[in-house]
Amino acid sequence: MAAPKIALDVMGGDHAPSATLRGALLACSPGGGTPVAPTRVVLVGDAPRLESELRGLGGNPGFEIAHASQMIEMGDSPAHALRSKPDSSIAVSTRMVAEKKAGAVVSMGNTGACVAAATLGLGTLHGVKRPGIAVTLGLTGHPITLLDMGANIAPKAQHYVQYGAMGSIYMRDCLGIESPRVGLLNVGEEKGKGTGVLKEAYELFETSGLRFVGNVEGRDLFRGICDVIVTDGFTGNVVLKLLEQFSTFMLGLVLKELEQHGAADWGKKSLQSVRKSIDYSTYGGALLLGVSGVVVIGHGRSDERAVANAIALGVRAVDAEVNKHIEQGLASRAALPEG
Amino acid sequence: MAAPKIALDVMGGDHAPSATLRGALLACSPGGGTPVAPTRVVLVGDAPRLESELRGLGGNPGFEIAHASQMIEMGDSPAHALRSKPDSSIAVSTRMVAEKKAGAVVSMGNTGACVAAATLGLGTLHGVKRPGIAVTLGLTGHPITLLDMGANIAPKAQHYVQYGAMGSIYMRDCLGIESPRVGLLNVGEEKGKGTGVLKEAYELFETSGLRFVGNVEGRDLFRGICDVIVTDGFTGNVVLKLLEQFSTFMLGLVLKELEQHGAADWGKKSLQSVRKSIDYSTYGGALLLGVSGVVVIGHGRSDERAVANAIALGVRAVDAEVNKHIEQGLASRAALPEG
Repeated sequence: MAAPKIALDVMGGDHAPSATLRGALLACSPGGGTPVAPTRVVLVGDAPRLESELRGLGGNPGFEIAHASQMIEMGDSPAHALRSKPDSSIAVSTRMVAEKKAGAVVSMGNTGACVAAATLGLGTLHGVKRPGIAVTLGLTGHPITLLDMGANIAPKAQHYVQYGAMGSIYMRDCLGIESPRVGLLNVGEEKGKGTGVLKEAYELFETSGLRFVGNVEGRDLFRGICDVIVTDGFTGNVVLKLLEQFSTFMLGLVLKELEQHGAADWGKKSLQSVRKSIDYSTYGGALLLGVSGVVVIGHGRSDERAVANAIALGVRAVDAEVNKHIEQGLASRAALPEG
Repeated sequence: MAAPKIALDVMGGDHAPSATLRGALLACSPGGGTPVAPTRVVLVGDAPRLESELRGLGGNPGFEIAHASQMIEMGDSPAHALRSKPDSSIAVSTRMVAEKKAGAVVSMGNTGACVAAATLGLGTLHGVKRPGIAVTLGLTGHPITLLDMGANIAPKAQHYVQYGAMGSIYMRDCLGIESPRVGLLNVGEEKGKGTGVLKEAYELFETSGLRFVGNVEGRDLFRGICDVIVTDGFTGNVVLKLLEQFSTFMLGLVLKELEQHGAADWGKKSLQSVRKSIDYSTYGGALLLGVSGVVVIGHGRSDERAVANAIALGVRAVDAEVNKHIEQGLASRAALPEG
């Protein structure tokens, strides 16, 4: 049987469709990692436009094209947009996964619309209570995965533990971390900190079979003391937006300072590695874990490299059978990455 | 009547008592701002040691000294330490405020112990449901106050609105912002975002008489679109710890990069202004708002400049009668800084 395809929402993102098309071409080129076969990629969007753009980029190397007559804008209300635009590129891509014509959907579009389309259209994996958005950052030189980043703003105790399990399986399968350490984001390290639901989650983690390292704090994102950090979608969302803007802001301050010392050009260049280490598109964007199908949501401002990383993440998650392992892991503790 | 005194917990902080004593001397010296009269400062701690250290620093310019035979360590459990060390410098300082021998307590010590001592020992201001910890940052060149940073991890809707009111009055009285704009930290800008309690808080804010600008997001800490950001103590605590560590981490990355280009010394120097802009001790540390007395909690690692800023904040809050204005403001909307 042929490997499952990747449905790429070519119309999603601030620089679409140009950046998404270039990203698809880059993912299939032999530069750097393992190239993806063009025949595994389905471009979903305005077909005549995509064909014309591809001609401008040197031709179609073998992508399948699926037409979607509508597109959801970044500012659209997710629920309303999904209802009023049933033929949007996000809806068509997700439908391909629901109908088993593809194994993954990859989109740089409206995050809320992607999550809603997937949650409603794909359903949850067997045993999963609530899907969660996982984001992997490379802050300290090794990857750290945070979830949930906004799908579930008021989780119950057992949701936290499932996020720990799903995050661990993803890190083992896709990032090669054999035995991921799981921390619970809290206001102090000691057991007994936080709200009632966090205390309950702590207890559940202790007997979960996961490699639970206890409570971690805001500062621990930068300390390399755990691989998966679990939090509620409210805190996760605030943290993610803050990290993004803070890094941009700090680099701006530093550059301004260097500018005043006549070193702006040099500074811009030498700070690129700093910028990269705080850019989560290095790991391909956010992954909606817990739905029946692989869903990768890249950042709206993704450039072609970020799009290629997102496609590669989709391929990796599909080929590693992350979702099968999540179902097995939740059904039986023995299949969870252990402590 | 003489101006109320400032009880300085000289034993609190990583560099105590040296940094705290030097900070007290700096606060009273005519360098920079308005010097504090030494006779307004009460040094609370191990009296023989303080006297000896002061002699080494050139003598006592007129500080009152109050003996405290015990001290609470940074790592002590707050509740247990307060019970087992009734004569700790934090307890004695707070008691001086409770007994009206001082108007403010200023400590760089164990934050949890300071908050617990104040909450239990001073009681809340008339009309205040729950005290909140306010921290002022100077990220974008103008001050922004966040609260609550950890006193109240699961606030009710009306607590949020009281935090907005208290934060506004503090910014008006102590930082000269005439009509502070208040934002509610949430996962999206639109009304109707977030948990039930946040939706309810939004509604209450709309009719509060405050200058409410609606929901703000994690990225809005860096955008200058509001002056007071209100959030629950859980999110606030995570955000504060994350900001602190992230800025240290980012500057470390940048310095490492500059080092590789042979510009480490130059970098360290030229990045000092960046470091300062993200250091909340610039504004004197955290203020516990809503208790009967002014409580300033500086960072444990405060140097003498940070200690002097914390003392100055205590003086400013006392002299501006922030607490009287909070009681008036909560009793009558007309006394709130308006929109």
